[in-house]
Amino acid sequence: LTFLSAHFAKVSTEMKYSLEMCREIDDRDKLGRFKQAFNLPSGIIYLDGNSLGALPGHTRQRIEKIIDDEWGKHLIDGWNVSWWQAPSRIGSMLARLIGAKSEEVIVTDTISVNLFKLIAYSMNLSPGRRVILSEGGNFPTDQYIAQGFAKLQPHIEHRTMPPGCIDPKPHFTSEVAVAILSHIDYRTGALRDMHAITARGREAGVHIIWDLAHSAGAYPVDLNGAHAEFAVGCTYKYLNGGPGSPAFIYVRKDLCELTEQPLAGWFGHADPFAFEEKYRPGSGLRRFLTGTHSALSLGALEAGMELWKEVDLEELRKKSISLTSLFIDLMRPIAERQKLSLITPIDPALRGSHVAYLCDDLGYNVIRALASRGVIADFRAPNLLRFGFASLYLSHQDVWHAVKHLSAVFDSGEFRESRFECRAITT
Amino acid sequence: LTFLSAHFAKVSTEMKYSLEMCREIDDRDKLGRFKQAFNLPSGIIYLDGNSLGALPGHTRQRIEKIIDDEWGKHLIDGWNVSWWQAPSRIGSMLARLIGAKSEEVIVTDTISVNLFKLIAYSMNLSPGRRVILSEGGNFPTDQYIAQGFAKLQPHIEHRTMPPGCIDPKPHFTSEVAVAILSHIDYRTGALRDMHAITARGREAGVHIIWDLAHSAGAYPVDLNGAHAEFAVGCTYKYLNGGPGSPAFIYVRKDLCELTEQPLAGWFGHADPFAFEEKYRPGSGLRRFLTGTHSALSLGALEAGMELWKEVDLEELRKKSISLTSLFIDLMRPIAERQKLSLITPIDPALRGSHVAYLCDDLGYNVIRALASRGVIADFRAPNLLRFGFASLYLSHQDVWHAVKHLSAVFDSGEFRESRFECRAITT
Repeated sequence: LTFLSAHFAKVSTEMKYSLEMCREIDDRDKLGRFKQAFNLPSGIIYLDGNSLGALPGHTRQRIEKIIDDEWGKHLIDGWNVSWWQAPSRIGSMLARLIGAKSEEVIVTDTISVNLFKLIAYSMNLSPGRRVILSEGGNFPTDQYIAQGFAKLQPHIEHRTMPPGCIDPKPHFTSEVAVAILSHIDYRTGALRDMHAITARGREAGVHIIWDLAHSAGAYPVDLNGAHAEFAVGCTYKYLNGGPGSPAFIYVRKDLCELTEQPLAGWFGHADPFAFEEKYRPGSGLRRFLTGTHSALSLGALEAGMELWKEVDLEELRKKSISLTSLFIDLMRPIAERQKLSLITPIDPALRGSHVAYLCDDLGYNVIRALASRGVIADFRAPNLLRFGFASLYLSHQDVWHAVKHLSAVFDSGEFRESRFECRAITT
Repeated sequence: LTFLSAHFAKVSTEMKYSLEMCREIDDRDKLGRFKQAFNLPSGIIYLDGNSLGALPGHTRQRIEKIIDDEWGKHLIDGWNVSWWQAPSRIGSMLARLIGAKSEEVIVTDTISVNLFKLIAYSMNLSPGRRVILSEGGNFPTDQYIAQGFAKLQPHIEHRTMPPGCIDPKPHFTSEVAVAILSHIDYRTGALRDMHAITARGREAGVHIIWDLAHSAGAYPVDLNGAHAEFAVGCTYKYLNGGPGSPAFIYVRKDLCELTEQPLAGWFGHADPFAFEEKYRPGSGLRRFLTGTHSALSLGALEAGMELWKEVDLEELRKKSISLTSLFIDLMRPIAERQKLSLITPIDPALRGSHVAYLCDDLGYNVIRALASRGVIADFRAPNLLRFGFASLYLSHQDVWHAVKHLSAVFDSGEFRESRFECRAITT
């Protein structure tokens, strides 16, 4: 036994697994040692690392150093000592996780802002084409930013594929300049075939911007292997950069100096401290920077990234499959009883690291009742239960206990009795 | 004696002032008590709070609370507990400092990104006009962002006024949709007449975006009094929000729901957690938000803003004038000897809270030699010495000592001997 292998997912009875068996698997888990690197509240099973990653134990120390030493003692000189290079420095730490070269990744702004930059940049590369393609049902900011961009240029059409369109290739017509695609769907967890779709995009002359929000740190992304051109991604989920930590941009090396992006702020200038009147884009990925970045938010991210240096990505993927497979299997009888429908691909090769079920209109109550038992998962309006499996700090025993709690929530009916106020929970 | 009054600036001999006199003034300084609220390194006189504000003593504690409690214990629920409302909550704290209503200010992104939003927004309000006006010699990001925006819409012209144009009104022609103007010039410290220029803008149909980077926390800005429409500003200078803390946006209440801005991210949506396909702008200032903000960077800013609750803005202005006047007077013989030319208005009513001199090509060395004596000031390429006076933590004695050190740097010639590597120092 190392991890549950993929074919276990086909076994359908809860009885197959015991807590003892989970413990044995955990004992052999090569990533198990990372759990102690996080400060998780005792008694909590956290299945929401795909919304906000847990707190690494050493993050506080790193932030204290920035505050007391870099800011407090060095004052303005902190920019020279540390902060100026942080977007590139952290980008290069991130590169390995997504299959990029170290100089192809930079950390800055938010996914929303970065998508805007890349839409504009890629449209510049295809002046004869007028369509931005995005997917219905994708995380809304990807749609909204495309809509916002299209309103600036009336000749541009923002076109949306039908929701659930896992294969976008038929939509790559000759009018399409750029397509924004999630690598792993934020709701279903379905994984797109990056290699095939990127290849088809290249043939069709369509630039693709991959949204790696639910991939980075959850799946060994291979941007270079797929010859992918552009990507954005999130660092506050699986990468544990802290609430609202900055996003990243990937641009394939041969494309990064071909044109400019319109959010042409001074940090992206070729020589920011020359105070020239005219914008000249910086070299490489620096031209995708805009304004002055927060040293604190980048610092917390850097602390989170340090843990990743020692993570074997193949082990990560194996464990992710093992955890999600175990969860799906244990959940099967509950799902049948409660009429929850699994919308995540049952084939582990086709999914990322979270699992989702459609439920009836009491879904929010289920998640809150579960939370009151110490199991934190996620509700997505209007009717989605979403469970994330961050392999660095979850064990198979955690999964086993989480399902037991969920079963008890349903069996006891406590979710029906509760009156939970519906509050926002962020992605 | 309370502070040196404005007419003291006309007195021209260094001998007029003694350290003893400075001490007496400081003893009566109503803002003097704030100095102990900052953790300034001992032996340092910090004349660069207009680049990066000093560290408030309680910031670290606030950040530790966010890390340990809000993130570490509440995990994803930290968004409900605290973070979601932070942009508006801190915006309302900031409003008094710039003469705005609490609902007219929101904290988000960077000045660069926010300028882009406001350019687009204000151009939407003037569909028949095609010119974005900005000022030559202004802080470069203001120019670059206007250039970047203009490239997206070929019919738009980005027009630049001559550098040093303190009165932009003659440039408000009927083609101009929007003008980006610094309230206080980042180099000279010259203060624009916001009331008169805003009034002229209104007559001419020109929307004005005021850049308050060097005003907020340095000068009692009166946006509502001037009937100003739009503004952006910086929080990491006089407001002490920390390196790269987020910027703010002001939009006059009657204008804030007239149209949309193009960086239409999910945090600006009317109902972000409804996951609608189509962007609907949020109410009030929320529509100027874009992506997920950093809880840490906003948290540090909130700590900085707490100090401002008790600051009397009239006292602030009086002290600012007193400090800059003292500095200019004490510097007069040195400036004459060393052929430094003061480019800051000598009339205190016409300047903000920093003072700048043009110098020869060894200016960078002067600033570094001064730093090695514990006096931190700022060099702006190619030939500007800039000295900022943050009234919350500087005293008249500090000014007196700083000038003594500067005098010694020149008299000893140590700045000529030194071989300082020219490193970037941020705004």
